[in-house]
Amino acid sequence: MGPAVGKPKSQSPGPNAVDRLSTLLAEDLAAVDALIHQHMASPVGVIPNLASYLIDAGGKRIRPLITLASARLLGGGGDAPRKLAAAVEFIHSATLLHDDVVDMSALRRGKASANLVWSNSASVLVGDFLFARSFNLMVETGDIQVLDILARAASIIAEGEVMQLAAANDADTTRERYMAIVEAKTAALFAAAAKAGAVAAGRPGVEAAALETFGRELGLAFQLVDDALDYGGLAATMGKNAGDDFRDGKITLPVVFARDAGDEGERAFWRRVMSGERTDDDFHRAVALLTRRNAIAQTFDAARAHAAAAATALTSLPANAYTEALAELTDFVVERAH
Amino acid sequence: MGPAVGKPKSQSPGPNAVDRLSTLLAEDLAAVDALIHQHMASPVGVIPNLASYLIDAGGKRIRPLITLASARLLGGGGDAPRKLAAAVEFIHSATLLHDDVVDMSALRRGKASANLVWSNSASVLVGDFLFARSFNLMVETGDIQVLDILARAASIIAEGEVMQLAAANDADTTRERYMAIVEAKTAALFAAAAKAGAVAAGRPGVEAAALETFGRELGLAFQLVDDALDYGGLAATMGKNAGDDFRDGKITLPVVFARDAGDEGERAFWRRVMSGERTDDDFHRAVALLTRRNAIAQTFDAARAHAAAAATALTSLPANAYTEALAELTDFVVERAH
Repeated sequence: MGPAVGKPKSQSPGPNAVDRLSTLLAEDLAAVDALIHQHMASPVGVIPNLASYLIDAGGKRIRPLITLASARLLGGGGDAPRKLAAAVEFIHSATLLHDDVVDMSALRRGKASANLVWSNSASVLVGDFLFARSFNLMVETGDIQVLDILARAASIIAEGEVMQLAAANDADTTRERYMAIVEAKTAALFAAAAKAGAVAAGRPGVEAAALETFGRELGLAFQLVDDALDYGGLAATMGKNAGDDFRDGKITLPVVFARDAGDEGERAFWRRVMSGERTDDDFHRAVALLTRRNAIAQTFDAARAHAAAAATALTSLPANAYTEALAELTDFVVERAH
Repeated sequence: MGPAVGKPKSQSPGPNAVDRLSTLLAEDLAAVDALIHQHMASPVGVIPNLASYLIDAGGKRIRPLITLASARLLGGGGDAPRKLAAAVEFIHSATLLHDDVVDMSALRRGKASANLVWSNSASVLVGDFLFARSFNLMVETGDIQVLDILARAASIIAEGEVMQLAAANDADTTRERYMAIVEAKTAALFAAAAKAGAVAAGRPGVEAAALETFGRELGLAFQLVDDALDYGGLAATMGKNAGDDFRDGKITLPVVFARDAGDEGERAFWRRVMSGERTDDDFHRAVALLTRRNAIAQTFDAARAHAAAAATALTSLPANAYTEALAELTDFVVERAH
């Protein structure tokens, strides 16, 4: 937290950018957590049990932090940003619960996923509950404009998830198509989270547009890094969930790069494994081909470009501690991988 | 459609009450259908395909009709009631898609259910899309009060679905607990559909309260009749979906009545079949026991009492063709079974 010296952002990318943002917004964040727990309450025990199993499992709360910071950097006060931040986390949580059902996931945030502990049915229905409660929270703000922003985002997210489902096992997925999926399934909520914060601060014009761009670009960067990490990142050290995308037949940007740069034999390999059965050996060959074609590094480059665009979008906004913390976040989403 | 003579409601309960309401609201209903198709549109082909497979399969549109009639009977004009009616149908459709995943249903509206034709994953995600789009439609009305009503209903529905899931295979489910499930999973949306219509007509006070009661009681009647029909109704002629509740281990009101009136052997039977495996022979024994204990007739009596309460709620409202058609609907939901 000392004075910035030299080129602090590139020298010290700050793996703690999320922590710094959390510290800066500690009071808000505590209020958001209280709202979350208050609104996931239900006499039907399964609901708070399953919801808190996911929500209290140590997610980083990046999306609600973006909403809060966006509102505060524009001088927005009051309770509305907190309610919107909680609503954004509920939408995100509902999406995670449904994603895990769709992907038949077994792990989430380092624990057995809720659909395994309870059931697919419970995950579907509790997801629906959280989604509905997110709208209850938005209604409490009385602000139809933020409802518009987040309701639109919610339908775009669902559209993105369906697009992804339709593209799974389609070995010919293009870069454009893949980026459209990422834009919808991930970036739309980041964009809406930031924009809603600005609107709640009473700044629906150029500031909201700048923050929307910030959110969208940050979301794109975030997802591309996730995709690279799913193949072990640059170090090729496998995280506990590595290989999920490969196993699910999801064609992500690293695969697009490696496939398009590959020779005929490599393209045949990608076509076979992405449209049919995949073995553990196939996964190791995939990682080797990604390395040979520099596909992970290229994916990081693409992520870095989006992170830079996110940082640029912030330059038109008031310079203060919140804006600075969001700028650090743009480094963090890329550098967290190293 | 001739002049009413004598006691038209009890003499001629009108299996065509829905048709009459549809005729009365033909212009509105056509506009609602246009809104529905407009808002289920998406460049992602699976979405309109799956959604229209369900929505165009010949549902009776009872819930949107209730919203439209509630608004019109109070003199409410304009587009808002149509948008809300479409939103209500979307919420209902999303619920059906998710229900069929939860229940692993194979049939819906006489066709293979969407989860069989596409997949559980597609049904979950398209349900999410329709749910989100329902909020887009509500936002278009610009009326935060109707958003409040329908968002609350949406979370209560999800709560009811989870309650039902938790109660499945619990042979000791009481009548009170069962009615709480019905209230949440079915009656809450009927109540909200009616209330939202009144609010859209600018009558949020006593008229909205009366219509909310009408909707709730009608919804309770509707669900109890459905429960009776799932055991073949009074005639014990099996509809194509009969036996679904039994197979799913759902303890509905007919079972509660038969179990509570049964002797020790009967109670042991219900305990065994509702908490464990169920055969076709078990189903036939169940129907026989329901008949012996008059449980279907008692369920119809309960439904009739709720339908009567719904009709009573209408008496405080302006008497006009819409109110009359809603009154006929209260007979129809019970008498459709005969």
